[in-house]
Amino acid sequence: MKWGNLNLMSDTSKFIEHISFIQSQTNKALSKIPLKPELTSYFYDPISYVLKGKGKRLRPVLVHLAGQAFDAQPDDLMKAGVAAELLHNFSLVHDDIMDNDSKRHGQPSVHYRWDTSTAILAGDGLFIFSQLSLLGLKPVIGQRFNEVALEVCEGQGIDKQFENDSSITMQEYFVMIGKKTASFLGLCAEMGALLGDATKDESDEMFQFGFNLGIAFQIKDDLLEIFGEEKTMGKSLGSDLDENKQTVLAVLAREENEKEWLHFNQQENTLIDFKNYFTSNGIRTKAENLVENHVNMAVRCLDAIPGKKNKDLLEYSNLIMNRDY
Amino acid sequence: MKWGNLNLMSDTSKFIEHISFIQSQTNKALSKIPLKPELTSYFYDPISYVLKGKGKRLRPVLVHLAGQAFDAQPDDLMKAGVAAELLHNFSLVHDDIMDNDSKRHGQPSVHYRWDTSTAILAGDGLFIFSQLSLLGLKPVIGQRFNEVALEVCEGQGIDKQFENDSSITMQEYFVMIGKKTASFLGLCAEMGALLGDATKDESDEMFQFGFNLGIAFQIKDDLLEIFGEEKTMGKSLGSDLDENKQTVLAVLAREENEKEWLHFNQQENTLIDFKNYFTSNGIRTKAENLVENHVNMAVRCLDAIPGKKNKDLLEYSNLIMNRDY
Repeated sequence: MKWGNLNLMSDTSKFIEHISFIQSQTNKALSKIPLKPELTSYFYDPISYVLKGKGKRLRPVLVHLAGQAFDAQPDDLMKAGVAAELLHNFSLVHDDIMDNDSKRHGQPSVHYRWDTSTAILAGDGLFIFSQLSLLGLKPVIGQRFNEVALEVCEGQGIDKQFENDSSITMQEYFVMIGKKTASFLGLCAEMGALLGDATKDESDEMFQFGFNLGIAFQIKDDLLEIFGEEKTMGKSLGSDLDENKQTVLAVLAREENEKEWLHFNQQENTLIDFKNYFTSNGIRTKAENLVENHVNMAVRCLDAIPGKKNKDLLEYSNLIMNRDY
Repeated sequence: MKWGNLNLMSDTSKFIEHISFIQSQTNKALSKIPLKPELTSYFYDPISYVLKGKGKRLRPVLVHLAGQAFDAQPDDLMKAGVAAELLHNFSLVHDDIMDNDSKRHGQPSVHYRWDTSTAILAGDGLFIFSQLSLLGLKPVIGQRFNEVALEVCEGQGIDKQFENDSSITMQEYFVMIGKKTASFLGLCAEMGALLGDATKDESDEMFQFGFNLGIAFQIKDDLLEIFGEEKTMGKSLGSDLDENKQTVLAVLAREENEKEWLHFNQQENTLIDFKNYFTSNGIRTKAENLVENHVNMAVRCLDAIPGKKNKDLLEYSNLIMNRDY
């Protein structure tokens, strides 16, 4: 990718160290959330299980990097970052029930390890802790956080609605991932800016940065669901296709040649069949181009940051988009 | 009940009119929540269905009455009242899944009308709307709201944990209903006070008022589950016993004579058998006395309100406790 060589210009190992520091500090903050398993293990054990999971804390990292570009206070960024991670985990726990996913971050999902009721309540708890983590921050943070949380739920609603619907267009797909994934990354970058000295225009632009990165991220995720390594992804591959989810590959394939795709999709296909189909028809390349375009759009938004303090966010974009197949 | 004749001292019909006004204004505010079914009917249709349900809006009424006793602004009270009603409905939708309840307010519960996934997401949406309704209120409201929301989840966790556990004591039962039901009514009264000119001591006392009323309310609810009218309750009776829930009657019966209770409970009993058992063993009377004691404790907390502005809250206590069998 064109922007891929940007990391040659900077001290990548120092950047990785910086990210690792944010991740470990976030894990430390998550471990300090006051749980009371002695009061009710039913409620607190699964929450503890989720918080110890091997998440990459990509959202808190984004909050911190965006905040550092606008000179925000570390303590404020930690509160917002932890809230973002909790919101993320809330949505994973509930979505895993809805989407019947049995694995998450390489271990059994909550509803699979316990049961549906336990997972519903654990998700609720994670969401409440996210609200508690925002206490003391300026009101606009709570407002934007919950506005975007609503969008994430809207996105999940659209996603569920689209299951088994073989008329979804790329435009509709973009609305879905825009709500479900991209707006959340947008929120993380925007919160960082808002907690710093960003103007309204600058924080809006930071939302757009995260949003475009999120679009790229989700398309990449759809690609990895087919072309990735099960071990790297920490979940079983191809499950979206099993659930008849509208992934970028399915929608592009249909738009490319609906008749051929429907014919192919009616057969008993293995993951390898899907890989071959998407590769030989140029669908994979199209999706990869979409990833590249949206990362480029994201990177252009970084021009809004005054004083060239965009180096870490460029590296970050690079890092999360270059996840291995 | 001793305090039952208090309503003879006041203009009850005027009070009922006042309550009806708060209820209809609350319903109006709930109907104005911006739903977008055209974007995703999967997410918004069940939310709309829940908001149109025949709830009595007891929690918003409590927020308003407590707030009026402390000269709070009506607009602020409406925001907090709507948030409380949304939080209540969020917990009902999720609890109905967990407790396998098919009816709510006389109509099918959400997971029964649609399915579990839809109900999980609808509950999440109701909870997010409750957070959005709090925007613009003083920070302590958001703090207390979410602290108590956490307690409500803890209470539900304890409730689930206690299912099928035939060693639960009355003390443990009180912890459960304190968290699950009483703290929420406490919050409503406290929010009203906090939005007005109450001191810290006064708002704490108002929490205690609502809390004790909530304890009485839940014990009364357990009684109505057995001795009430199905039509009045809007749900099927006896379902708590079917689910092996620890109701006040089951716990009292066990503490009274464990051997006799276990022997009785092992049989195939009808609702009438349960009614006869609890009545002939004096369990019903014991539970009714607990209701009366806690209402009296609640009423004593009202002495904290300056200038004798406690008339409406006394009437309110009277009203919700005198629900018919």
